[in-house]
Amino acid sequence: MAAPEIEQLIQLLSKLPGLGPRSARRAALHLVKKKETVLQPLSLALQRVDQAVKSCSVCGNLDGSDPCSICTDPRRDDRVICVVQDVADLWALERSNSFRGRYHVLGGTLSALDGIGPDDLKIDQLVERARDSGVEEIILATSATVDGQTTAHYIADCLEECAVLVSGLAHGVPVGGELDYLDDGTLSAALTARRKID
Amino acid sequence: MAAPEIEQLIQLLSKLPGLGPRSARRAALHLVKKKETVLQPLSLALQRVDQAVKSCSVCGNLDGSDPCSICTDPRRDDRVICVVQDVADLWALERSNSFRGRYHVLGGTLSALDGIGPDDLKIDQLVERARDSGVEEIILATSATVDGQTTAHYIADCLEECAVLVSGLAHGVPVGGELDYLDDGTLSAALTARRKID
Repeated sequence: MAAPEIEQLIQLLSKLPGLGPRSARRAALHLVKKKETVLQPLSLALQRVDQAVKSCSVCGNLDGSDPCSICTDPRRDDRVICVVQDVADLWALERSNSFRGRYHVLGGTLSALDGIGPDDLKIDQLVERARDSGVEEIILATSATVDGQTTAHYIADCLEECAVLVSGLAHGVPVGGELDYLDDGTLSAALTARRKID
Repeated sequence: MAAPEIEQLIQLLSKLPGLGPRSARRAALHLVKKKETVLQPLSLALQRVDQAVKSCSVCGNLDGSDPCSICTDPRRDDRVICVVQDVADLWALERSNSFRGRYHVLGGTLSALDGIGPDDLKIDQLVERARDSGVEEIILATSATVDGQTTAHYIADCLEECAVLVSGLAHGVPVGGELDYLDDGTLSAALTARRKID
């Protein structure tokens, strides 16, 4: 057995997603061996995140300021709000560099199995934002799973009273994807939504 | 892009063994979302390890005290020293609960490729310890790799002048291992070292 301090570190590391008991042990040993270059900077970064990062009261993004830097960015388009399940999805869209509007993070999807109802998600706040006269379109970018699509349909119903266009992401063949490896649902959606090549 | 504090955390996490950029991002998000239950305990554990854990001046083990708890344990056998490459190997042997002597952590193996010579390993300290009249056997438990075995042979030469028995781990079929999946070297070693079943 390692020292109790190290055992505790291993235990905490092994609870992180993507780390099992074995890799947590390797990571802990790496940290202990490189105190100055790895452990101390990580410890500092954790404290900084702990103090600085909070949830944006407008969109639910995690950032060092509230409202977050996306909500306060004057170069972004106020007219379009993209609704995502999770902050990770917001990050993915930001990495793709293809969206210049605002976001709204739901915090999950409706799920009968997990007992997540409309009140557990930030749907009321979204409807509130949609009522603003400046908003013209709401893009529902929830996952293409059953729960994600159920949530999208539910939100679309909630937004019916608002004067906004409600849209969803296109289905189709992923860029770089091989047809042979695609599921039937995606192939059929890609065929149905086929486009004229010009 | 996420907040700079989070980006820095992702960057530091992705340098840990077993975590790539993608899993580091997932781990960071998990940490930020569960500040009280995950981030703060981990931050505390890192600070505790940083302050408490040091390298044992006798054997090279990492522990909260120096000499370490294994070196000072009165129930352990002073007559046998097991030589391992790394603290991780010491942990593995301790988990197997099959050795009750003392340890000596080399801190690596001789390696011409990586430019690691005898002076970079704790070999002098081992010879010093072996000169003690109480030590009867030194078990060289380095890896069964070329570098590990080279190191073992080198150490065996260094220990020739000392009045100690120098031994190595047995080679053979791993317990639970299937013959079909074993390499030729292991199979041939297991055959050569075959034992009468009684």
